[in-house]
Amino acid sequence: MGKLVENLKEIKVIIEPEGRIIQGKRGENLAQILKRGGINLNTWCNLKGICGKCAIEIIEGRVNEKKEEEIKIWKIKNWPKTYRLACQIFLEGDIKIKIPEESIIKDFKILDRGLMIKKEIEPAIKTYQISFVHNDLVRAGSILDYLREKLNIEELKFSLSSLEGLSEFDLENDVIIYVYDGKELVRLSKGAPASPLLGLAIDLGTTTIVMEAIDLESGEILGRQTDFNHQLSFGSDILSRIAFACTSPDNLKKLQTTIIDELNQMIGKFRDGCGLEEENFMEAVVAGNATMNHLLLGLPVASLARAPFISLFSSIEPLRAKDLNLRINPEARIFIAPNIRSFVGGDISAGLMAAGLFDHPGPFAFIDLGTNGEIVVKKDDQIVVTSTAAGPAFEGGNLSCGLPAVNGAIWRAELINHELKIETVNGRPARGICGSGLIDLLAIFLQQGVIKPDGRIARGQEKIEIQADIFLTQEDIRQAQLACAALKTGFRLLLENLSLDPRQLQAIYLAGGFGQELSIENSQAIGLIPRIEKEKVIFLGNTSLAGARLLLLNNSSRKDLLSFLEKIEYISLAMEPNFQDYFLQALKFGPWP
Amino acid sequence: MGKLVENLKEIKVIIEPEGRIIQGKRGENLAQILKRGGINLNTWCNLKGICGKCAIEIIEGRVNEKKEEEIKIWKIKNWPKTYRLACQIFLEGDIKIKIPEESIIKDFKILDRGLMIKKEIEPAIKTYQISFVHNDLVRAGSILDYLREKLNIEELKFSLSSLEGLSEFDLENDVIIYVYDGKELVRLSKGAPASPLLGLAIDLGTTTIVMEAIDLESGEILGRQTDFNHQLSFGSDILSRIAFACTSPDNLKKLQTTIIDELNQMIGKFRDGCGLEEENFMEAVVAGNATMNHLLLGLPVASLARAPFISLFSSIEPLRAKDLNLRINPEARIFIAPNIRSFVGGDISAGLMAAGLFDHPGPFAFIDLGTNGEIVVKKDDQIVVTSTAAGPAFEGGNLSCGLPAVNGAIWRAELINHELKIETVNGRPARGICGSGLIDLLAIFLQQGVIKPDGRIARGQEKIEIQADIFLTQEDIRQAQLACAALKTGFRLLLENLSLDPRQLQAIYLAGGFGQELSIENSQAIGLIPRIEKEKVIFLGNTSLAGARLLLLNNSSRKDLLSFLEKIEYISLAMEPNFQDYFLQALKFGPWP
Ligand code: FES
Ligand code: FES
Repeated sequence: MGKLVENLKEIKVIIEPEGRIIQGKRGENLAQILKRGGINLNTWCNLKGICGKCAIEIIEGRVNEKKEEEIKIWKIKNWPKTYRLACQIFLEGDIKIKIPEESIIKDFKILDRGLMIKKEIEPAIKTYQISFVHNDLVRAGSILDYLREKLNIEELKFSLSSLEGLSEFDLENDVIIYVYDGKELVRLSKGAPASPLLGLAIDLGTTTIVMEAIDLESGEILGRQTDFNHQLSFGSDILSRIAFACTSPDNLKKLQTTIIDELNQMIGKFRDGCGLEEENFMEAVVAGNATMNHLLLGLPVASLARAPFISLFSSIEPLRAKDLNLRINPEARIFIAPNIRSFVGGDISAGLMAAGLFDHPGPFAFIDLGTNGEIVVKKDDQIVVTSTAAGPAFEGGNLSCGLPAVNGAIWRAELINHELKIETVNGRPARGICGSGLIDLLAIFLQQGVIKPDGRIARGQEKIEIQADIFLTQEDIRQAQLACAALKTGFRLLLENLSLDPRQLQAIYLAGGFGQELSIENSQAIGLIPRIEKEKVIFLGNTSLAGARLLLLNNSSRKDLLSFLEKIEYISLAMEPNFQDYFLQALKFGPWP
Repeated sequence: MGKLVENLKEIKVIIEPEGRIIQGKRGENLAQILKRGGINLNTWCNLKGICGKCAIEIIEGRVNEKKEEEIKIWKIKNWPKTYRLACQIFLEGDIKIKIPEESIIKDFKILDRGLMIKKEIEPAIKTYQISFVHNDLVRAGSILDYLREKLNIEELKFSLSSLEGLSEFDLENDVIIYVYDGKELVRLSKGAPASPLLGLAIDLGTTTIVMEAIDLESGEILGRQTDFNHQLSFGSDILSRIAFACTSPDNLKKLQTTIIDELNQMIGKFRDGCGLEEENFMEAVVAGNATMNHLLLGLPVASLARAPFISLFSSIEPLRAKDLNLRINPEARIFIAPNIRSFVGGDISAGLMAAGLFDHPGPFAFIDLGTNGEIVVKKDDQIVVTSTAAGPAFEGGNLSCGLPAVNGAIWRAELINHELKIETVNGRPARGICGSGLIDLLAIFLQQGVIKPDGRIARGQEKIEIQADIFLTQEDIRQAQLACAALKTGFRLLLENLSLDPRQLQAIYLAGGFGQELSIENSQAIGLIPRIEKEKVIFLGNTSLAGARLLLLNNSSRKDLLSFLEKIEYISLAMEPNFQDYFLQALKFGPWP
């Protein structure tokens, strides 16, 4: 080895090939120095020297010798001689190193669009390979106390079923242990650790379910399934499902079984289509509205159906896959994104988290317009939230010619030279109108005077023909008017609550399928959203799914989310004295003042 | 109401009929004043005003008005007008009260004999009756958050299955909730709380199982069952059962099923014989040796069979009855008294606790002589413990004419006028020898020179006839010699470890069936226990059962026990350099030096 000038106190760590220098002190831990220097070194096992993820290469300089456990990892990994675990090195003098690519923590992009947000990959479940050292075993007194000591987790908990892998336990061979949230032993096995270690991110929507299979170590999305929620056959919206569930415990059970069967089918496709083993899925995160969460868990929903409209739980301890009969590893943990309130569910809490909005000083608004329109407004430390019974008009529901955004749905309309031009999904022959098309049509007809601001069709006509067999009736327009008014009223009351003028908003974030292809001008023209600069309206895509993915890949987000939620104030619109007045005013189509 | 002289700051609480006075301050909580004054007032719900157990009667003086919830309790209980909840009263002026008997916390006697030890009744499971207040519900946001608030338990946890009682939940009626260890919601029900609320104390011995049904509120023992351990058919001692269990996972399962079936049969007898409902049992505490604990949980015992002879766990989180298929309330919690070490189990830890020995400054010794002889020696803050492979001779096992202490077993022998007089259990015709009889016989034969100190029978005889068909063979004496030597060696090494001379011991506590009817002089004569004053040898009876009872009725004992255990040092005899020497010396019968 070459000679480096050694200083008795300050020591240099030179990182090749860039030649970057980080200063350290004699005796200091190399992994800690690198972290302090801003290097995103993977210290998965918290410097315990057992995960083998913090490898670096020594180019020059003298360091302490490897201990027994490091030698073992080094052999297993078949590393070159120069490789060392950074967390096992305590500096003796200047040192020149190289950091292999795989020792740097990867981060992942959370949202698919709208905002570029990144987080470190740091899942709740971690695996460790542990070997048994006779003397340490004797000192520890029991196998589990030994594991506690090796992992340095004093409060390591375990359940009987997590020990099932022990049936033919022997102390000669290593054991692989899976620890959840740094404190719960969830699985023990022999041989190699599950690879890849997998998780599920689930967006459990009333209408649609999206499920992603994610590699918990790389953050890579290995597969995605989308399907209609099979519960649709028991009612198309939340309220009809609640009504069905309340008729009998059997019906509640039926709804639960339906959703679980469907999730299991989707999981099966990951196996058949992508070769992913069920037993390697050790985690799942579900982001759904409060009702969907209750139904998934088979919990009674009666309290959601009647005043005071409260849910049974807001947050719940992670469940085990086997408690839900979910066909992944039976000991996998299922994290349910916490509900904010009965009608502002885990989909919204996860979505806000995904968009990083809790850290955003504001003022801004976040809107998820489905059958319920959930609205969040934040200003500094104050966050208010409400849900409005917007009805399904903007999802294409309840309209004479309504359609979801499927092939042939009119999703855009424009006046070009005073002539109505329509555009359909995938250019297929028009066969109905979806939400974004409805907004365009309403704005155009208002502008033309075909629809009066009070919603009546001019000259007392019954309907407006768009093309053969596609039309808007007076009743369709009423539905749109009610949905628009509900949202506008809720939005206005929240802004008032924080003494905000809409023009003060830094941004309006639009989440959900609704936000994908919406004309901002036309939405403003009919009064769905306030008049602010176009570039301040930002479409975020499926924030619920992105939130599930974030909570799956980054354990500390779960804790952050729970503490953020404490700051949220729920505004019950019906209780606001101005609700009635504002609602009546909002029934008039037209831009915000 | 009469007039009491009121002082602006210091206020008098006068307790009738004794007229005792406790001083308080204006605005202070009456329950707290009484507690501070040394009155053992029952404040079961921690002053939350919902348990109704802290009732007092106001004789004179003005107090604050009842709030809604107190009025409710007061109506339910049908109390006289003058009754109030002490925890809901904040002093305004001098007051004269009476404390009804039922508001004083009962305590219970722990040991059946030997030491008079009492503890407060304070089980881990508590029930609360909660009603729903509309406005508070709305503020709390969810039913479970409401319960958290009402109980003032921020971290209240619950599992899906604990919510099963909710299937037909309505907010009009009160709900009964069962909280375990002040933080876990284990059961929800409607109607009246389970009455009586029951618990099981189980002494899970290798040979015998004793089970008590206990009223968790009064501490009363409502029933007791004793039975041989049905696992005896798979091996009479621990080692043979371990061997059997290790042959195949099926055998392990068989041992588990056998013990659980047996426990369920015993529980069934409480129902049939005493009319106790299974579902009212909300708790059980098991005190057993480490092997029995493992077998009860169906956990592999291979590590107990081979060096380094360690158990899988020392302490384990409480289990749910349904995890073990125990037929009491499925959500009942099963607390397993923690093992100290592989061969010093929960029976010993519970026993030490029951006898209050952790608080005893010592120096003392505690001996539980079964197939394994467990020895504990304590001096100030040092506690050392070991187990010796004494073998079953002192339980009447492995002797040609050995018997447990059953009818007809010789359990006492004396020389009266140079003639051997024997006494049998229940005076029945002699048909064998049990442990205490063996000790007497050995001492007598030694004294007569019929047996030499080295164990040989004088004049090279094969056996010593006691009466027709009852005799001791040379081999029987060898067994006794080995058992005695094992115990003596262990005892001596522990004493040495703490630099104690046996004469310094304040007491020797003898636990187990062994200790019931033993001649102290004769035990000392053969060298089983050291020579100290007779009154310092104290028989404690079944400390394992008493320990289970204590842990069942007094929740804080569980925590105390766990922290005491940290102070215990296990001495592995085989590792001690003097072991071999001392053992050879101890093979000679005769008193300690
Ligand atoms: S951080 Fe895990 S081995 Fe270094
Ligand atoms: S302590 Fe429970 S009501 Fe007073």
